[in-house]
Amino acid sequence: MNVYRYPENPVISPKDIPPYLQGYEVIGVFNAGVIRHGEEIILLLRVAERPINHDPKVGLSPYYDVESSSMGVHKLKKGVPGYNFSDSRGIGTPDGSLLTSISYLRIGRSRDGIHFAIDDRPALFPENQYEIYGIEDCRITQIDDTYYINYSAVSNLGITTCLASTKDFSYIQREGVIFHPDSKNIAIFPQKINGKYYALHRPSSSSFGKPCMWIAESPDLLCWGNHRYLMGCREGEWDEARIGASCVPIKLEEGWLEIYHGADRNNEYCLGAVLLDAEQPWRVIARSRLPLLKPETPYEKEGFFGNVVFSCGALYENQRVKIYYGAADTSTCYAEIEMTDILNGMKEVG
Amino acid sequence: MNVYRYPENPVISPKDIPPYLQGYEVIGVFNAGVIRHGEEIILLLRVAERPINHDPKVGLSPYYDVESSSMGVHKLKKGVPGYNFSDSRGIGTPDGSLLTSISYLRIGRSRDGIHFAIDDRPALFPENQYEIYGIEDCRITQIDDTYYINYSAVSNLGITTCLASTKDFSYIQREGVIFHPDSKNIAIFPQKINGKYYALHRPSSSSFGKPCMWIAESPDLLCWGNHRYLMGCREGEWDEARIGASCVPIKLEEGWLEIYHGADRNNEYCLGAVLLDAEQPWRVIARSRLPLLKPETPYEKEGFFGNVVFSCGALYENQRVKIYYGAADTSTCYAEIEMTDILNGMKEVG
Repeated sequence: MNVYRYPENPVISPKDIPPYLQGYEVIGVFNAGVIRHGEEIILLLRVAERPINHDPKVGLSPYYDVESSSMGVHKLKKGVPGYNFSDSRGIGTPDGSLLTSISYLRIGRSRDGIHFAIDDRPALFPENQYEIYGIEDCRITQIDDTYYINYSAVSNLGITTCLASTKDFSYIQREGVIFHPDSKNIAIFPQKINGKYYALHRPSSSSFGKPCMWIAESPDLLCWGNHRYLMGCREGEWDEARIGASCVPIKLEEGWLEIYHGADRNNEYCLGAVLLDAEQPWRVIARSRLPLLKPETPYEKEGFFGNVVFSCGALYENQRVKIYYGAADTSTCYAEIEMTDILNGMKEVG
Repeated sequence: MNVYRYPENPVISPKDIPPYLQGYEVIGVFNAGVIRHGEEIILLLRVAERPINHDPKVGLSPYYDVESSSMGVHKLKKGVPGYNFSDSRGIGTPDGSLLTSISYLRIGRSRDGIHFAIDDRPALFPENQYEIYGIEDCRITQIDDTYYINYSAVSNLGITTCLASTKDFSYIQREGVIFHPDSKNIAIFPQKINGKYYALHRPSSSSFGKPCMWIAESPDLLCWGNHRYLMGCREGEWDEARIGASCVPIKLEEGWLEIYHGADRNNEYCLGAVLLDAEQPWRVIARSRLPLLKPETPYEKEGFFGNVVFSCGALYENQRVKIYYGAADTSTCYAEIEMTDILNGMKEVG
């Protein structure tokens, strides 16, 4: 695949972001939702901060305490049986998982799409029981004059997907939990199809099968149903272990073009594409043979969680897909791919 | 708790049910949805059948093959690493769980509520990709002149909840998947509250928290959203490990009375009750201190999966709650409890 990576990637790194929380450090700025808003390109960046740890014998897990409206930190002694510190992102405990950082959303604004001015304060910070471990990986869908933002809310109640809306990115209104635990990687289509809204989603089953892509419909963007299995993992391929929607679907003459992510058994995350029927988006027409983008550069291969390219948003302008993507769960990068190259790299399904 | 158990329980046992599938045996008839339909009481029974196994060295897992519209059986050699045969209900494999039996729904009809004539043929048998491992644990909610049936559909895609509807229990119309994987134990309220339908549900998270009760709303019974956490497990109590809705909520002056099930760390399943606010059913008013019903008799303590009482439906008539319940995942039993006893055994929450 012919990919143009911006030569000075990453375009945003943790060092560019002063921490919002006192006593914390920014370890990631990645997986941003993106939209063009007038003259500006808006990124709704996932910023991950973690408490600065002075004691190597303990692991720290930050959380938002709803009752006191302030941050708290769980301290967990290493070496205790039943506790697992092997994944940099989380701590396994007998009562369920904890996270080593807390994420929230922060706005970046740019006129050239490369140089972003980052807001000092969060646009969306945890504030209720569904969000106590953080707000992650949003997507932005414009429908008429409203921007709908869906994001993963993580807590001891599971991973839900919540909706919020804004007209101007100054005030963002929360609209509630739209997908129950566990759900992730929701991408809402930017227009109704035959009178209904549609969204791609990625439920995960505790004991049956692998995490794969589904599609749901809605009369109002808040209530979702008629869930249908859309497509699964491909044994022995780059997307063999789990897949999920990445970007908001792009309308083409050929159908809906969805850039999705997939991981293999070694947790290498790549981006691919799938083409869905224009009128019946639950029908898969074609799918990328090979990844569009795979971790190749040092900033993609090394970081907080290496060997990851992961996108939550792209712009489609001048026949080019302009992809903003998280690299190694650490930084925000930029790449461009010609749409014709994407379509030529697909294989018909059926 | 003052419980009247029908002295000749179980009212329906596997021996009362001829198998529907050739070469299979009925191992369970349990967890029935119930409704009064004219002069009759209708049970929509979960019947579990398993292939008769002549080889103790293998485990069998039946499934419905959608392409050929016929049954298939996975044969799994015992003693192979990575395969777990310790739970009578399922087989753990490296690619996910399989079940040792296949369930479907069959109608029982009665005038006295005790003696049931069972249909020869299934009312709802697996027929699509969401149902290949079976159809389980339905609830029946009457709204106006329609009976809505929701059930767990199990497959390699996960456990979803599907909706079906009927006016007469002769033809049942499938309405699609209403809750994505994993979801179970949905109970739809029998009327709109302030213009919206409501349902209790039980999502399960793969790594965060315990399976607990949530409530969702809907404009049309098909699409569900505004998911809210309702109540959780109680550490050290009979409902410490997992809980879920059992019966369709009963409207009282005091609020909505829900009979739910809970299990402890030893997998003993009991029934309890919770009272929800009449106008704001996401608010818990009171909850049973002790179980209403717990496994005590031999038919509840011993069976395919022992120490289980589990209900999917009750009738509320003459101030008495008439509970149909599955005993030991094997048979269908009947009990009555005075509503005043249930309410007196509750503890206010909040």
